[in-house]
Amino acid sequence: MTAHVPTLDDAHRLDAEDPLAWLRDRFAPALPGRVYLDGHSLGRPPATARHTADALISTEWAHDLVNSWFSRWMRLQHDLGDLLGRHFLGAAPGQVAVTDSTGVNLYKLAEAAVSARPGRRVVVCDRDIFPTDRYILEGVAAERGLVLRLADFDEITGPTPDAVARVVDERTALVCLSHVDYRSGAIADLAGISAVARSAGALTLWDLCHSAGVVPVELDASGADLAVGCTYKYLSGGPGAPAFLYVRHQLQDRLTQPIWGWFGHRDQFGMGQGYEPAPGMRRFLVGTPPVVSLALVEDGAGLLAEAGIAALRAKSRALTGFLVELYDAWLAPLGVRLAGPREPGLRGGHVAFAHPAAERFGKALEAEEVIVDVRPPDRLRFGLAPATTSFTEVWTAASRFRHIAAQLG
Amino acid sequence: MTAHVPTLDDAHRLDAEDPLAWLRDRFAPALPGRVYLDGHSLGRPPATARHTADALISTEWAHDLVNSWFSRWMRLQHDLGDLLGRHFLGAAPGQVAVTDSTGVNLYKLAEAAVSARPGRRVVVCDRDIFPTDRYILEGVAAERGLVLRLADFDEITGPTPDAVARVVDERTALVCLSHVDYRSGAIADLAGISAVARSAGALTLWDLCHSAGVVPVELDASGADLAVGCTYKYLSGGPGAPAFLYVRHQLQDRLTQPIWGWFGHRDQFGMGQGYEPAPGMRRFLVGTPPVVSLALVEDGAGLLAEAGIAALRAKSRALTGFLVELYDAWLAPLGVRLAGPREPGLRGGHVAFAHPAAERFGKALEAEEVIVDVRPPDRLRFGLAPATTSFTEVWTAASRFRHIAAQLG
Repeated sequence: MTAHVPTLDDAHRLDAEDPLAWLRDRFAPALPGRVYLDGHSLGRPPATARHTADALISTEWAHDLVNSWFSRWMRLQHDLGDLLGRHFLGAAPGQVAVTDSTGVNLYKLAEAAVSARPGRRVVVCDRDIFPTDRYILEGVAAERGLVLRLADFDEITGPTPDAVARVVDERTALVCLSHVDYRSGAIADLAGISAVARSAGALTLWDLCHSAGVVPVELDASGADLAVGCTYKYLSGGPGAPAFLYVRHQLQDRLTQPIWGWFGHRDQFGMGQGYEPAPGMRRFLVGTPPVVSLALVEDGAGLLAEAGIAALRAKSRALTGFLVELYDAWLAPLGVRLAGPREPGLRGGHVAFAHPAAERFGKALEAEEVIVDVRPPDRLRFGLAPATTSFTEVWTAASRFRHIAAQLG
Repeated sequence: MTAHVPTLDDAHRLDAEDPLAWLRDRFAPALPGRVYLDGHSLGRPPATARHTADALISTEWAHDLVNSWFSRWMRLQHDLGDLLGRHFLGAAPGQVAVTDSTGVNLYKLAEAAVSARPGRRVVVCDRDIFPTDRYILEGVAAERGLVLRLADFDEITGPTPDAVARVVDERTALVCLSHVDYRSGAIADLAGISAVARSAGALTLWDLCHSAGVVPVELDASGADLAVGCTYKYLSGGPGAPAFLYVRHQLQDRLTQPIWGWFGHRDQFGMGQGYEPAPGMRRFLVGTPPVVSLALVEDGAGLLAEAGIAALRAKSRALTGFLVELYDAWLAPLGVRLAGPREPGLRGGHVAFAHPAAERFGKALEAEEVIVDVRPPDRLRFGLAPATTSFTEVWTAASRFRHIAAQLG
């Protein structure tokens, strides 16, 4: 804790010195006066998104029509996957595809994983993982008569290799965890936990929704087996933009996912009898992808790739660190609790606070044009997307929060 | 067969008298001189699509951001489903949702159906159904140890109630068929076959990809149980636009689909422990839908609803009838075979031809700016989307086909 409380001038200075300041102007203008700190739910649109959609509709769709499938659209799920793999996920080409929703992808990979570990009857998951992951795994377990073991990890740090080692054993087929916790923002040790799971003979399936585009992910180097994540948060792919999935090279031809659509068939247009899964990543696809939403993923991911994940991460650490400094000075004394890691290296792109009046605080902040995310019963999450958030916005939000907490706390 | 061969003047006259002539101008302009007869693969864009995408990106996404989920986007899958139900599918509100791909929807409903018929070990399907349907069912059967019985129906008429009666019995859990055959264009007797299946105690699952928006479908009245279909063909929802699924009211709360995502949870934002399926249609949803692609479905469906399915069907019958007249005069003598029903009441929106040189014909037609669909080894399909196809285009295409078949046949 520093004795000096950052001032608005400090915030202006940090913005002036920000090497990513140029990036903000490459996004569509926000409403003037609004401080948007919910980029971990829905990222703001790249300025080019309107043009991309317009060109796709007026040329590729209107003029080239079905021929566009063969000139470009058939490759989109793979090309965009490789783009994400290269710039954000640490994955060599041919291991990532952008397709379906996170939930559908998690289902496909979880089913494929437990089928590849016959005789092992337990799926391990964090009780505090984003609920849809837990529900999907509950469905997989119910259908197959497996046991879903919900582990309780430390609320602030989330799962650690040691903690995971205590809950996996020779009965574990699959370990499914988040890389960055959706509530606390804590970063899990991807490599350490993957190694623990692997040494027990279990596969790992990582949810990267809250890390893709903000925290560097090294899938290949970490030894992770499988991963899913969304593109509509930090990656600014657009509302509900298709999700991604990763399958490590060595596993691809040994896994079969359960939804046997023609996009996953070895000879998609042969229209033959009998399903034969394509070699490689294509077997993890199912049906015709929603091209307009899919194509927009390129704008957001391309823009962030231009900035580079290292620079984004550096700014993200500075932004969340700045908010924690202001928290220490202004909010801790008012009874607001920091509900995530204090150490910047352990924290993703959002900062979580806890207070019994969180819901009222969230409404009051919105009335003052500060948009944050409220998670009942007592959490507020400030999502500081590094591509679009300024230090001035963080200072303004913290200052308004301070006054609201003083009045309503 | 008429002695009079329709002339180009006849085609012009039919276009001048066409009560749906206004509708063509409500679509985005095609490339001049190109005759596009592949609307049964990808429908042309409504003229409003560019504006719809632009407004969504620049206002709902850029300004309102996450709040748009609560002001509109959360309802889209249901509202668009009801729109399709009312105008095209003969389904009362609350039974149709627009979500996921056709393949994923078919998987969800097939799994739900076979789970609801425990003890019945057979799934019946048409061997000549669109391959992805067959593959998906093969996967469901493999996972659950069921028998997939592929029935061989008449190549021209497709499945009839009598033919289906011969292949369903007390062991049949599910009968999955297409309403309009993707190859021949034959219309199946939805009500008659559904009654046969029901009397055997089996559920029915209909693929409506080639009927939605061109042939009136009466799901509620027919006694069909379940259906899926796509929105990117006659409905002009855009490339890969999300598909729809239908679940009859009485069945909804008795079926559980296997992909337990948060959009299907009773209390989606409660984030509680334990999956509880929502009552009604919501339980058939999984994850966050691709909003830009989804929202565009409203433009195409809304435009066709304005015309009305009865008028679309009347024009469709006239268009395909006109093509068959020209076929009789010009193409039959050259050895081209009509590979679908001759009776207009039994034919959907496309006309299928067979010839050993089909692939060469297709390429030659494309070189003369006529875009049709080739299905190896020997089929050509002329898709005459009634909203956007003129009699003059049909005449032009048939005339060029005649010369090509004479030269290359």
